[in-house]
Amino acid sequence: MASLPLAPASDFRQRCHSIRIGERVNYVNTPHVIALVGLPARGKTYMGKKLSRYLNWIGINTKVFNLGEYRRQATEAYKSNDFFRPDNTEAMALRERVAVDALEDACEWIEGGGGEVAVFDATNTTRDRRRMIHSIVVEKMGYKLLFVESICNDPKIIQATIKEVKVNSPDYKDVENETVLNDFLLRIQHYEALYEPLDEILESHLSFMKIFNTGAKVLVHRHEGHIQSRVIYYLMNIHILPRTIYLTRHGESCHNRQGKIGGDSDLSDKGWNYARTLGDFIKTQRIRDLKVWTSWMKRTIQTASYIEAPQERWKALNEIDAGICEEMTYEEIEAKHPEEFRNRDLDKFHYRYPRGESYEDLVARLEPVIMELERQKNVLVIGHQAVLRCLLAYFLDRTADQLPYIEVPLHTIIKLTPVAYGCKMEEIHMPIEAVNTHRAKPASCMSIQKDQ
Amino acid sequence: MASLPLAPASDFRQRCHSIRIGERVNYVNTPHVIALVGLPARGKTYMGKKLSRYLNWIGINTKVFNLGEYRRQATEAYKSNDFFRPDNTEAMALRERVAVDALEDACEWIEGGGGEVAVFDATNTTRDRRRMIHSIVVEKMGYKLLFVESICNDPKIIQATIKEVKVNSPDYKDVENETVLNDFLLRIQHYEALYEPLDEILESHLSFMKIFNTGAKVLVHRHEGHIQSRVIYYLMNIHILPRTIYLTRHGESCHNRQGKIGGDSDLSDKGWNYARTLGDFIKTQRIRDLKVWTSWMKRTIQTASYIEAPQERWKALNEIDAGICEEMTYEEIEAKHPEEFRNRDLDKFHYRYPRGESYEDLVARLEPVIMELERQKNVLVIGHQAVLRCLLAYFLDRTADQLPYIEVPLHTIIKLTPVAYGCKMEEIHMPIEAVNTHRAKPASCMSIQKDQ
Repeated sequence: MASLPLAPASDFRQRCHSIRIGERVNYVNTPHVIALVGLPARGKTYMGKKLSRYLNWIGINTKVFNLGEYRRQATEAYKSNDFFRPDNTEAMALRERVAVDALEDACEWIEGGGGEVAVFDATNTTRDRRRMIHSIVVEKMGYKLLFVESICNDPKIIQATIKEVKVNSPDYKDVENETVLNDFLLRIQHYEALYEPLDEILESHLSFMKIFNTGAKVLVHRHEGHIQSRVIYYLMNIHILPRTIYLTRHGESCHNRQGKIGGDSDLSDKGWNYARTLGDFIKTQRIRDLKVWTSWMKRTIQTASYIEAPQERWKALNEIDAGICEEMTYEEIEAKHPEEFRNRDLDKFHYRYPRGESYEDLVARLEPVIMELERQKNVLVIGHQAVLRCLLAYFLDRTADQLPYIEVPLHTIIKLTPVAYGCKMEEIHMPIEAVNTHRAKPASCMSIQKDQ
Repeated sequence: MASLPLAPASDFRQRCHSIRIGERVNYVNTPHVIALVGLPARGKTYMGKKLSRYLNWIGINTKVFNLGEYRRQATEAYKSNDFFRPDNTEAMALRERVAVDALEDACEWIEGGGGEVAVFDATNTTRDRRRMIHSIVVEKMGYKLLFVESICNDPKIIQATIKEVKVNSPDYKDVENETVLNDFLLRIQHYEALYEPLDEILESHLSFMKIFNTGAKVLVHRHEGHIQSRVIYYLMNIHILPRTIYLTRHGESCHNRQGKIGGDSDLSDKGWNYARTLGDFIKTQRIRDLKVWTSWMKRTIQTASYIEAPQERWKALNEIDAGICEEMTYEEIEAKHPEEFRNRDLDKFHYRYPRGESYEDLVARLEPVIMELERQKNVLVIGHQAVLRCLLAYFLDRTADQLPYIEVPLHTIIKLTPVAYGCKMEEIHMPIEAVNTHRAKPASCMSIQKDQ
């Protein structure tokens, strides 16, 4: 066991016990480590990255510590599965040391301030290894620890995972596909020889979740606290079935033409034109069991009117509430509320319109929409500029700084398809003119933003 | 198997596939039956009632069908545990018939229109019984079926349950407590002789959730769809530890004094007086690990200023948004918007202020607050009139019709303590004068409401 040159978490916790103000409360009083468990090719990295993307998006500062990357940094010795043989004592010692390094880095990242959840992406398949993790994370640092074990005995899913992500692993640069597959299956066998699944009796003091065959069965043991509850709920709701999510803004509205923000205006003639074109486009795509979601606002409902598919209305999809600036042009806002206008440019994500909302508020309001999107298959969301920026930031893993500047032009369909560890994005621009409503960050704000 | 004189669920489903508008979408396209499983005194009735209360509150029409009540209606033969002996063939036949009756009633209630989730509260401890339920609910009616099994092997919890709820059961009218306990323990033994817990292999086609020792472990098998996901999340978050929830409105505000609704005004002198008194009161109560939740509004934050306990701010606790009527008196609203004023009286729960919210919207916004309250122990919520009406409706199981008229006077602390199958409510009136902000339903609206 390496000794950590770190203070215990009590200071951190005290720091966080003060009064908090936010759209939602930040419940993460105690830092968390989420340690994945499972044989190779069980989707651990997929889950870890996805979970991290979700937690960061809802405002919980999360980082993945991937053991494979630490191992590759520590040694270039990996030539074949021999490295993972249980009787390769030299390699075993190296792997133990690398695991401790990764965990220490995770703890330092948390103690350094700001880090709230560290995801430890490694196999952690022995009780010994988990005992080591518990002693550092819980006993030494005073954090909370949740193990998430992925168990999969469906050879089809395992082979698909290997083909999708392992073939391109840095471990196998310049190696032929078939050689990769064989070597990797042997590597799994070495792990299987020592694999001890999480045990309710022998490890009864641990908090853990087991996911069998990507969610066909889920077991939760001794879960506690808000953050674990959120993590478990999220992981129960995701699936890996192929599907496509379509996003589009409403067609051009009368307010768009006048340069006004907010309000609840009708579509312009060009907007109606887009609505018809969208209806035709969706028809030609023959999308299976498509569902259409709109906001409550006229311009999204009108945009959906030519689509033949079940429709649902979400208040949560309504455009950002601009408060006292509703139905004004940017020029009017600048003239009437110059201070507000300037403040918004300085920190657009956190800026809240007086009596209205911030992008941060919007993310909180959209969280149930994301949760339900994760559960669904093919969905078309007809939304608004700010709303779609938030959804895109989730799917494309953009930071809070980048989020309010994502370009979402009118009369454009965005297709999101899950691939490997992320989402492929395609844009389909419909040949119907529309005004440009994007307002880039003024150059004058670029340098000073960090100080705000 | 009794034959049901009912049409399959396809009509119902078609009816529900049309476009829906609501704060949230109502996802319950397919009716659900949630069938409880478990030995007597495992908290099934507690879970069933609580779940039903929650689902009704979030707008999903739910009803519990309790087999014990059907049995008591069908026979007065119950004298002792002999009735439940496995070799009592006459009683066994009666119990089977009564189970089918209850299920048929549940299905008729759903088909009759409006029923969305039926909770079947019975032991359902044999695979045979569950096969019968599956054949009626899924094969015949086309509904979704989720089994929820409560497993408890902690004698302390079981005895506490028997003492708390069974001693007062109608089965044991005029029987002494000790006799009840002994008879009931024998009754459990008769069930144990035939008990077959849900089996992942033998019943692999079923969707089910197992809850061990009131949540120490949870297993979820083949869950599907939005409603099951919500039910599972809710049941994972509730606990049975003793605790108290305190609710109070902010102290009297300047707007209260002027009879104005909404806005974000400061406390009046009397309001500040209440804030100090509240701080003193909480101190004398010596409440363990108390947390204080307020809204974002000045009047709740000011009211909390003398309380020595960690505080959190929730935007979701903000008062109902009265839209165009914000900061007006009722007299002004009646004068300026007579149509709106009248409409609100006719159906106050669903009425949405133009550009504002309805009580129905408010319930949706408060759902995460309720979920987090369920997870917490001692909490003091400092809120607003409409917000506390919604929270009280959840805890006290009030209907949507009753909700907007619940009295929540100023300068009063409401104490909610969980007991048996519900909540005990105490009101502590502080001796500090305040205006009365309650506006009763006008008598003229009483009779016509149903027609709206």
